[in-house]
Amino acid sequence: MITVVGSIAFDSVKTPFGARERMLGGAATHFALAASFFDEVRVVGPVGDDFDEAAYAVLRTRGTDTGDVEHVLGGKSFFWAGEYGWDLNSRETLDTQLGVFESFQPKLSPRSREADVLFLANIQPDLQRGVRRQCESARFVALDSMDLWIETARDSLLETIAVVDCVILNDAELRQLTGRPNLVSAARELLGWGPSVVVAKQGEYGATLVTADSFFALPAYPLETVVDPTGAGDSFAGGFLGYLAQAGDVDQMTLRQAMAYGTVLASFNVEDFGTERVASLGSEAIQERVAELIGFTQVSAAMAELRG
Amino acid sequence: MITVVGSIAFDSVKTPFGARERMLGGAATHFALAASFFDEVRVVGPVGDDFDEAAYAVLRTRGTDTGDVEHVLGGKSFFWAGEYGWDLNSRETLDTQLGVFESFQPKLSPRSREADVLFLANIQPDLQRGVRRQCESARFVALDSMDLWIETARDSLLETIAVVDCVILNDAELRQLTGRPNLVSAARELLGWGPSVVVAKQGEYGATLVTADSFFALPAYPLETVVDPTGAGDSFAGGFLGYLAQAGDVDQMTLRQAMAYGTVLASFNVEDFGTERVASLGSEAIQERVAELIGFTQVSAAMAELRG
Repeated sequence: MITVVGSIAFDSVKTPFGARERMLGGAATHFALAASFFDEVRVVGPVGDDFDEAAYAVLRTRGTDTGDVEHVLGGKSFFWAGEYGWDLNSRETLDTQLGVFESFQPKLSPRSREADVLFLANIQPDLQRGVRRQCESARFVALDSMDLWIETARDSLLETIAVVDCVILNDAELRQLTGRPNLVSAARELLGWGPSVVVAKQGEYGATLVTADSFFALPAYPLETVVDPTGAGDSFAGGFLGYLAQAGDVDQMTLRQAMAYGTVLASFNVEDFGTERVASLGSEAIQERVAELIGFTQVSAAMAELRG
Repeated sequence: MITVVGSIAFDSVKTPFGARERMLGGAATHFALAASFFDEVRVVGPVGDDFDEAAYAVLRTRGTDTGDVEHVLGGKSFFWAGEYGWDLNSRETLDTQLGVFESFQPKLSPRSREADVLFLANIQPDLQRGVRRQCESARFVALDSMDLWIETARDSLLETIAVVDCVILNDAELRQLTGRPNLVSAARELLGWGPSVVVAKQGEYGATLVTADSFFALPAYPLETVVDPTGAGDSFAGGFLGYLAQAGDVDQMTLRQAMAYGTVLASFNVEDFGTERVASLGSEAIQERVAELIGFTQVSAAMAELRG
């Protein structure tokens, strides 16, 4: 069972392909939609009076448990508005209204505390650490973070990193956090702080996984049209950790397979606005795309044998 | 046999790891040093009175033929000076003196015209097309270009692209040339103009190969320290085309293997200033790194079988 703690939000997004107002979004939402293909998911996060039954219904896709979604009476849900540039690699935040997220104190039910796999989505690192302590039996804990916490709560973030198994950051954040411009060097630095796995998300270029004795890189699934990149990173985390939850033992091959599932879930996420594509997705489409993605990276059996 | 037409230069380079004055450089030089591991290479390009025996000796590493290196009496060799930023992803040109390169008119000896594989390094596209016409029996012709020609000689560049088999550009150039921000879409557009193979160089993220019916992506070989990125793209092209020259038939698996050799040659190139590392390299080190690189991209035999 997987527990995710993070934002549940409404997003207004403008991209070169169109615009949408107040779609269901947030890190925990995108994560849960992706992870729910693999295992039972429990979502911990706050919502306001504006969070209606339709939004709950999407969040509950594939059985996700919303018992720990905290409805703060009189409050408003986290709201974000942003606009992406022509190549979708840059985005401008137009509005952020934290609402109920501002005073969020995660409360986990006994069942959520029993998570095998825990994802601490991007929230204040003190809160992440508090949740991590409540999930003593989790066998794999991962966190995400952002530039804001690297700048304003660095010490707390380092303390939290020390008690997780895996850090999932985009590569600019990894550079900023470690002060090392080189990816391999930054990942090695981070591994020295406690985690056994570092995943660098590289957007359109894919993702890289580094452990103490291994390196693995996977391209993004090639898409001719990317409609809305919002939530790609959390969809990646959902596919990645979902697969690990289902697989049991976390070894090198399982991690690599999990990277493929994370990459594929992210690719579906960006094909349409908000949660639209992943909410209605079937697991056969995921399997097909994972097989395709692996095909896009194979050199040849003969060459592989060179590894000896 | 491989013929390369392009610049032979002296470079002054400053990176976070140090600085060097007037090192041997230039596209044809870096290409030849990489390609010479695989097949006989002939270099066509102009040099000035300042091009001394020591420089010729490096250019002739592993038997590269310099009979078509044109010594322009009274002239000066192409000179470039540049400085790289802290993460090596940005660079500033401090000085460019075209010298003998300004009035370069490629003259190919009968032997150079018999190339099986031809690389038109980054020179004015009219000149590239003139050379291409002289090499009628070449079975695989590739070109590189740059933002300057995309901006100032676009029509000529398109004419040249129409008569080559392969375009090797960095991804920003590919976007600029096609006006398409999406890599897959840009590559498909370019394939419609004549070539059968498009290679997008993505720097630290690796390289991607697109044909009409295939997609292949390979990460860069992971290095903790990159000393000098100058010439990485031409070293890539040298490894890529060198392997293709040696392999004979150009099919999908050969292209993928060639991508691995290109990537590895580029990785050696950036480990030291100028030509230092590749000039003294042994082929065993290349084989080892190719095998390692392939290992960094394999998901698993079981997953690969999913492809059916």
